[in-house]
Amino acid sequence: MDRLISLIEKKNNPSVIGLDPVVDYIPAFLKEKHELVTDAILEFNLNLIDSFADVVAAIKPQLAYYEIFGSKGIEVYEKTAAYAKEKGLYIIADGKRNDIGSTAGAYAEAYLGEKGSADALTVNGYLGIDGVKPFLDKAVAYDKDIFVLAKTSNPSSGELQDLKLESGEMICEKMMELLTKWGSETVGKYGYSRIGAVVGATYPEQLASMRKNYGEIFFLVPGYGFQGGGAEGVRGGFDKNGFGSVVNSSRAVMLAYKKEGDEKKYAEAARKEVVRMRDELNTVR
Amino acid sequence: MDRLISLIEKKNNPSVIGLDPVVDYIPAFLKEKHELVTDAILEFNLNLIDSFADVVAAIKPQLAYYEIFGSKGIEVYEKTAAYAKEKGLYIIADGKRNDIGSTAGAYAEAYLGEKGSADALTVNGYLGIDGVKPFLDKAVAYDKDIFVLAKTSNPSSGELQDLKLESGEMICEKMMELLTKWGSETVGKYGYSRIGAVVGATYPEQLASMRKNYGEIFFLVPGYGFQGGGAEGVRGGFDKNGFGSVVNSSRAVMLAYKKEGDEKKYAEAARKEVVRMRDELNTVR
Repeated sequence: MDRLISLIEKKNNPSVIGLDPVVDYIPAFLKEKHELVTDAILEFNLNLIDSFADVVAAIKPQLAYYEIFGSKGIEVYEKTAAYAKEKGLYIIADGKRNDIGSTAGAYAEAYLGEKGSADALTVNGYLGIDGVKPFLDKAVAYDKDIFVLAKTSNPSSGELQDLKLESGEMICEKMMELLTKWGSETVGKYGYSRIGAVVGATYPEQLASMRKNYGEIFFLVPGYGFQGGGAEGVRGGFDKNGFGSVVNSSRAVMLAYKKEGDEKKYAEAARKEVVRMRDELNTVR
Repeated sequence: MDRLISLIEKKNNPSVIGLDPVVDYIPAFLKEKHELVTDAILEFNLNLIDSFADVVAAIKPQLAYYEIFGSKGIEVYEKTAAYAKEKGLYIIADGKRNDIGSTAGAYAEAYLGEKGSADALTVNGYLGIDGVKPFLDKAVAYDKDIFVLAKTSNPSSGELQDLKLESGEMICEKMMELLTKWGSETVGKYGYSRIGAVVGATYPEQLASMRKNYGEIFFLVPGYGFQGGGAEGVRGGFDKNGFGSVVNSSRAVMLAYKKEGDEKKYAEAARKEVVRMRDELNTVR
């Protein structure tokens, strides 16, 4: 996780900006300008990246919003990722991919390989180590990372993740334990392994207790802002050095122009929100 | 699950053919013929479909093997799915997708929507109902289905899935219980709901006991053939009417030409293996 953490350190900003181009988020004038909505999305994405690239460490494109447009959408994702890479940003492809053996290897190659489009990929660990090792191997080979779902931010996350095992721990805690074991040989100079975990801001107490109990696992924290968790809610996700978590915001940044009232100034509005978020997060770490 | 089951009934064949175009599976002469390997894959796929479309009910493209080629690969997937649809096949997109809210909705739209590329999608249920409902809603709206991972075929599947809960049941059993609850209002004329489960052939006893205990959940069964489970291993997956499971084979079909010795006759070899598999499965149901 060293590359991500050193960018967070350099930019003094523990946030990652989600690029989740829901069609309704795209300013109307951009959709009118382009015949294809995918072209409007690409212009929106690249201008957003330009507006905040010097301020943030990372972006997190949510693959579903590209995949919905089929091959055309994947092309927009590829161009967005390539542009962000040029700008020195760390790219977390949010795909929650999972499979085993050579199939997982194919996903890993696509996102984490030598020519992979991203620096990290979110992974669902339900399949056990067979479903994680192919991703981890690729991450080790190419200095990349993964984030495995542990305690997600949605209201029903507890339906499975909070169930108590015979052993007394919850499923999400067991997952963290497995992640610690699987990643133990990849701990970097900041003390974190190449296997991070997704832990939602919407369960601040669990976030804080997990930060305490699983010291080698870096967190990707969704749910700040629109999903209800504020800066106070993520305080417990940071370690004593102010690292330990990268906090995601998508809607608040992409839709910042709605508050400002001028959709043509969406990039300026996004930057303003990114700076506001950085300053707010820096008060709690 | 009615559309799939009626096709199984009509063709008297409970198998689904996995189209997992690993580059090494593609005959050398096809790779030489085309400049782009993606074009070789497309020709391979379409000819395979032609060879067995009258014999099988369904195909299962594994998305990772398309995604590895980026937007070009997704285009091959789209063309493969469109062609299979024309031929009247039921298409299970094996993507193991998972997310929540509008993000899950975007995946659902891509695969299960009105213009969605598939008839069913595999889904990972770790997120709880928030991660399943958007897929189920789309399935209900457009007469489609989903298959949620319960007990996967890989060696380490038990690492999480077989852990015992306080309540005494295993995580994979709890998952089956949730799937039964979530799908209960979508049971069709064959007695199965629109939420199926992935249950591996490599754990025949669990397959059989799950078939007995969760009567409304149709199974997608990987692991027959190369992963070690034979026809005997899937016997327990069928119900008293001979339905209850659709059994996947990928490698044995795609690589059938290697046994026959003439790579130019890959399509004929595939058909032969498909017929052999059908006849073998029909002896155990």
